[in-house]
Amino acid sequence: MRRAIALAARGLGSTSPNPVVGCVIVDASGETVGEGYHQRAGGPHAEVHALRAAGEKARGATALVTLEPCNHTGRTGPCAQALIDAGIARVVYAVGDPNPTATGGAQRLRTAGVDVAAGLLEAEAAAGNAAWLTSVRLGRPHVTWKYAASLDGRIAAGDGSSRWITSAEARADVHRLRAECDAVVVGSGTQRADDPHLAVRGIEGAVQPLRVVVDTNGTAVKPGARVLDDAAPTLVAIAQNVSAEGAAETVRLPRADGGLDIHALLGELHARGVRAVLLEGGPTLAGAFVAAGAVDRVVAYLAPVLLGAGPAVLSGGGITTITEALRLDVSETVRIGPDLRVTATLVAKEH
Amino acid sequence: MRRAIALAARGLGSTSPNPVVGCVIVDASGETVGEGYHQRAGGPHAEVHALRAAGEKARGATALVTLEPCNHTGRTGPCAQALIDAGIARVVYAVGDPNPTATGGAQRLRTAGVDVAAGLLEAEAAAGNAAWLTSVRLGRPHVTWKYAASLDGRIAAGDGSSRWITSAEARADVHRLRAECDAVVVGSGTQRADDPHLAVRGIEGAVQPLRVVVDTNGTAVKPGARVLDDAAPTLVAIAQNVSAEGAAETVRLPRADGGLDIHALLGELHARGVRAVLLEGGPTLAGAFVAAGAVDRVVAYLAPVLLGAGPAVLSGGGITTITEALRLDVSETVRIGPDLRVTATLVAKEH
Repeated sequence: MRRAIALAARGLGSTSPNPVVGCVIVDASGETVGEGYHQRAGGPHAEVHALRAAGEKARGATALVTLEPCNHTGRTGPCAQALIDAGIARVVYAVGDPNPTATGGAQRLRTAGVDVAAGLLEAEAAAGNAAWLTSVRLGRPHVTWKYAASLDGRIAAGDGSSRWITSAEARADVHRLRAECDAVVVGSGTQRADDPHLAVRGIEGAVQPLRVVVDTNGTAVKPGARVLDDAAPTLVAIAQNVSAEGAAETVRLPRADGGLDIHALLGELHARGVRAVLLEGGPTLAGAFVAAGAVDRVVAYLAPVLLGAGPAVLSGGGITTITEALRLDVSETVRIGPDLRVTATLVAKEH
Repeated sequence: MRRAIALAARGLGSTSPNPVVGCVIVDASGETVGEGYHQRAGGPHAEVHALRAAGEKARGATALVTLEPCNHTGRTGPCAQALIDAGIARVVYAVGDPNPTATGGAQRLRTAGVDVAAGLLEAEAAAGNAAWLTSVRLGRPHVTWKYAASLDGRIAAGDGSSRWITSAEARADVHRLRAECDAVVVGSGTQRADDPHLAVRGIEGAVQPLRVVVDTNGTAVKPGARVLDDAAPTLVAIAQNVSAEGAAETVRLPRADGGLDIHALLGELHARGVRAVLLEGGPTLAGAFVAAGAVDRVVAYLAPVLLGAGPAVLSGGGITTITEALRLDVSETVRIGPDLRVTATLVAKEH
């Protein structure tokens, strides 16, 4: 199953609105006879790839799958039936399918006489599929807020200069994060200060994310802005009463608290198939996401430098006293060149 | 030598104004016949402890010492002579003694026909003796700035509440840091906000540090303050034109930039034998130390929480643009309960 989870992760960033799924087929002697993962939406599911690789050896074998095989005919047929047709004797899956239109695979397998077990490495597989599971559960994309800051929590010096607080290695790592997401979101402050490009560079085969600028008043994305090039699609979100101009596709959303309604923004992105959002916004937009309860994970790149002045990482969020602090769990700490990358996940309230 | 370095570390916090030193004596067959470390100022040096343990087995043996054996008769006799008298055939030391009054040990040993080698695990041994080496080189104590903050770099919430951002485990770990230092320093802001105790609790055999409150205007340390109890000695630093009152010992220092002159403060502490200072000050005092170029190491306890408002870790320090940022090297990252402890050392300019 650990191998299946690793295979699944290869699909991150290219399967939305579908989950990432990995599948390993082993024969009675324990030998792997087929492997596969879901590579892109519209393409074959993991089980189908693995069954093709196994061929006749699938008969009587065990399929290990990270997610309950689907029972749904979409652009591809139901995987449960494909497993039955191939003569699979036993299916072990990690996470049950919470998607109402696709669930029922386990039942269909059992009815056909296949031995079915669930829950193997469930937590690990669920973590690998966090974006998709969050989307199914909450009806909005999973949000990772990424920031780069000094050890004392500042994103720029007193004079606004910020190139570069973190190292080239850390900046390269951000492209990997972008490649694993479906949309990259910044606000008007970042758009004005940095004129960011937001596309993925340096990662072969990466599917470019949708670049989203929250430009409430329609004034930050200027003609010639780097997000307007053709490296990736771009969407500019503006307030309903603002007149659109410029080259990019725009979407009008309701205002809230001095910016746009974050839930409306996420609803719009969800409707467009976005399951994983990378928020690269500055302190104000991040504050709006925190206030909306829409930060699921934080990836902080911390440079071992002290600034003592300049804008803080996060501004606002509606937290006024220590007991209201947004509490996370540190899931990983890694050295990236001279910097630290700290990944922390919202302490789950619903599990 | 690694063992000698580990032995040396046991003396941290109780040997000032002396260095920490460890010594291991091995015989011709490579067997350890004696070990020792410098336990407290005025007591025997590491070599003497190790020679006593080895007894007659020292004859013809090799002594591994973390610091060049001293050539100085202070409260104890010169270690170089003790090694010669015991019949040691070979001395290997890690770090040369930069102290002008004690150096010359290696020469004395060589003159007596002892084989001498230097530099084994030098960097590691020097790191273990950083406080003392800094003191000798700069004529002021080594300063570790410790702070506890949210992941977004705030030491309290918007309403000033800060108990507790970090965990009980992190707070316990601070007592270990205090025990390894000779003085713990806070400013008037921390004194007023927290009424801290600053003594070491929960560490058996710890030598209590000198508690120092930088109370420029003599108004922050009130009768009944917790630092005025008898758990540890206390020194209150006030400006020269302020009238002293209260129970604690006071020292008058020149003013500078709205507070006291940090170099004068460190000079005073150095004169009192303090070699390792733990700065537990808030953003203002830390800013004054940064501006004075008097932060050698940072120990940051970062809690995986977001606040979005409240005072920043560091305020001031005279850094206005990114190229002036105080650059450090991360030397260690450790999980302490749910929190992270990040240790970063000033990038050396003098080596």
